[in-house]
Amino acid sequence: MTKLLLANIRDLHCVSSSGEERKAGLQMKNTAVRKDAWVLVENDMIVGVGGMDDCPDPGSDTEVIVCTGSLVLPGFVDSHTHLVFPESREKEYVDRIRGLSYEEIAKRGGGILNSARRLREMSENELLEGAIQRAWEILYLGTTTVEIKSGYGLTTEDELKMLRVANNLRNYCPIGIKTTFLGAHAIPAEYKENRQGYIDLVIQEMLPKVADEGLADFVDVFCDEGFFTVGETELILKAARYYGLTPKIHANEIANSGGVQVGIAHDALSVDHLECAGPEEIAALINSNTIPTVLPGCSFFLGIGYAPARKMIDAGLPVCIASDYNPGSSPAGNMQFMQSLGCTIMRLLPEEALVATTLNGAAALGLSDQVGSIEVGKRADLLITEPMDSLARLPYYHTRDQIKTVIVGGQVLQK
Amino acid sequence: MTKLLLANIRDLHCVSSSGEERKAGLQMKNTAVRKDAWVLVENDMIVGVGGMDDCPDPGSDTEVIVCTGSLVLPGFVDSHTHLVFPESREKEYVDRIRGLSYEEIAKRGGGILNSARRLREMSENELLEGAIQRAWEILYLGTTTVEIKSGYGLTTEDELKMLRVANNLRNYCPIGIKTTFLGAHAIPAEYKENRQGYIDLVIQEMLPKVADEGLADFVDVFCDEGFFTVGETELILKAARYYGLTPKIHANEIANSGGVQVGIAHDALSVDHLECAGPEEIAALINSNTIPTVLPGCSFFLGIGYAPARKMIDAGLPVCIASDYNPGSSPAGNMQFMQSLGCTIMRLLPEEALVATTLNGAAALGLSDQVGSIEVGKRADLLITEPMDSLARLPYYHTRDQIKTVIVGGQVLQK
Repeated sequence: MTKLLLANIRDLHCVSSSGEERKAGLQMKNTAVRKDAWVLVENDMIVGVGGMDDCPDPGSDTEVIVCTGSLVLPGFVDSHTHLVFPESREKEYVDRIRGLSYEEIAKRGGGILNSARRLREMSENELLEGAIQRAWEILYLGTTTVEIKSGYGLTTEDELKMLRVANNLRNYCPIGIKTTFLGAHAIPAEYKENRQGYIDLVIQEMLPKVADEGLADFVDVFCDEGFFTVGETELILKAARYYGLTPKIHANEIANSGGVQVGIAHDALSVDHLECAGPEEIAALINSNTIPTVLPGCSFFLGIGYAPARKMIDAGLPVCIASDYNPGSSPAGNMQFMQSLGCTIMRLLPEEALVATTLNGAAALGLSDQVGSIEVGKRADLLITEPMDSLARLPYYHTRDQIKTVIVGGQVLQK
Repeated sequence: MTKLLLANIRDLHCVSSSGEERKAGLQMKNTAVRKDAWVLVENDMIVGVGGMDDCPDPGSDTEVIVCTGSLVLPGFVDSHTHLVFPESREKEYVDRIRGLSYEEIAKRGGGILNSARRLREMSENELLEGAIQRAWEILYLGTTTVEIKSGYGLTTEDELKMLRVANNLRNYCPIGIKTTFLGAHAIPAEYKENRQGYIDLVIQEMLPKVADEGLADFVDVFCDEGFFTVGETELILKAARYYGLTPKIHANEIANSGGVQVGIAHDALSVDHLECAGPEEIAALINSNTIPTVLPGCSFFLGIGYAPARKMIDAGLPVCIASDYNPGSSPAGNMQFMQSLGCTIMRLLPEEALVATTLNGAAALGLSDQVGSIEVGKRADLLITEPMDSLARLPYYHTRDQIKTVIVGGQVLQK
């Protein structure tokens, strides 16, 4: 048995959910701070949390990390990424600088279809290589659990290939992984004149195979202008439910698409993006079990509006922040920077941004009982910061990596 | 003699200025790329540049760095920072999130006056310690020359203390340093009812002592609404000219302040900020020798408008980008991120952002003949990137440090 004691922690931000919160495992502001604290880990689990006046005596079998002056936080949970992708797309970035919009680039066969073209040419091993690098990149930046979507394959074979790579990644990186089938990411070029043909393919061929091989935890649909309609989304969600896949929806990024409402109607675990969500969407979410997930990195990179996260929180909603790491609209998986955008641009308080990137991320992946907070019985995913006076220093120094040590499943990664 | 050969460089971005440019040592787009190139360094100088088909044979006395697949760039020149400061100000950041403006915080005695209060309590050694950390932080991120301003002292003694620290930093970090006297950064609390008294102090006591001790290369005035008027600025610039200090101006950040025009009238080397600059300011700059310097990190962090850098370039102006690293309005000295803001938000092309952060930064510090480009006879300040296909990858991956090796004055810093 491996034992690990984090001692002398200045501020331990447990982010535990109290009974007062709106939904089990979800909350918004309370980061449940313990001053002058310790955390005890056995193997991959948190087995004790307390104050230094009552610190357990570490035996000779216990590794001790002295955290004087530092904060300890739960590992970040990034609940929306496209981490498995073929290659960067900086040429389209330059096209946008020169004046083309993301939609115009997509219409020219760029965007998602560009990635799909490249992905189809690549072997699983080539794809895996890039994914391993990015998984370690974000793990060292503090992300200890990540969701990964398919959606650059857009053929049965290539969607399965992507999901196999995402699952296989577990053998090469200790980051926690949940996977999502996003066959309905775009209509591929070869189905341009036959939308229903592609939707049939997703429902009748892809979904059964994804379910049969147990490759995905969730299903997702890009329900937005220029992508999939509400009606098409409904067809896919109904079929997915038959195969036991819980929905998550790309909603209201480009237009007020109806994506939020269709997600809620089908009991989606989360609706993500929400840049174009308005008062009606906020009202609908309040009376639902669906978690609003905002992706500020996408707004930053595309220069589009930000989701109304402040308004959502003020309306009583628990908000989740994810990175949307992908080569087209958010080439950044750094959750420290996403917290900065959440605070600096969306005007969340640092405590709110922490909850949005930990406990609420866990809830948006159905992992509330396993990760996202520092509580006995949860996985030992812990971050030790540089010495700092307050949590606000984290989003404040927005270009500085301030996580000194990452602990994932009890394994200590020094930097 | 130490010899260093960088060989097998995929793309060498020399950023050399051609004769066609508007001003000596200034340009906007041409990064003068050599493919498959080498650079030879002796001691702290660049002594040769060429193509691999004609690479010098390295003797046994020559260290060789093989740069296969990588770009080599000139070190970044950050021409506007407040790197010497007492401490971070994340409490004011939280105040802003809660709804206060930067101006309201300043009026309450926060902002610059907050830093001044703390700085006056600190010893030179304490100040130096923080400055050394930040200097190494930005050097490792690629900044090989930095300008540092005073302006948090606001008494003769404390302004001199800041400038001594900035100069003394040379003994602890190999980064190139230029210093600027910014006594006129704000009216200190004790002169609130006696503005002229403080201006007299700056002119009659501070300036002579700064000049006498040779502590500053430049003089700067915060000529903006709520800070110093055009008339007050003129008084200070005239006096500074007597002492041989070239002006740089904080202009048009908060309002259309007249700062650009007064800077031009007094032959300022640069006018900096420019968030509120309009067509008149652009027209005035075109007929001047003054360099417009934009600070996108400040706009990002304060949530104010960005300077019209694209319009300036389209009008034929050579633009400089600097970080404005300071604890109140830009707690970030990362010039890779400033390039990203320049491209992603201000819509500069990657080549333009590179020139704006290298050669034009050098010009804004009067260092055109010493740094800012890769040319024989210049200081060996060189950056080796991760392997990448094109320069656009640098601003594209906006949260990833893509500089693998920094060479400053011929000294190789591995990361």
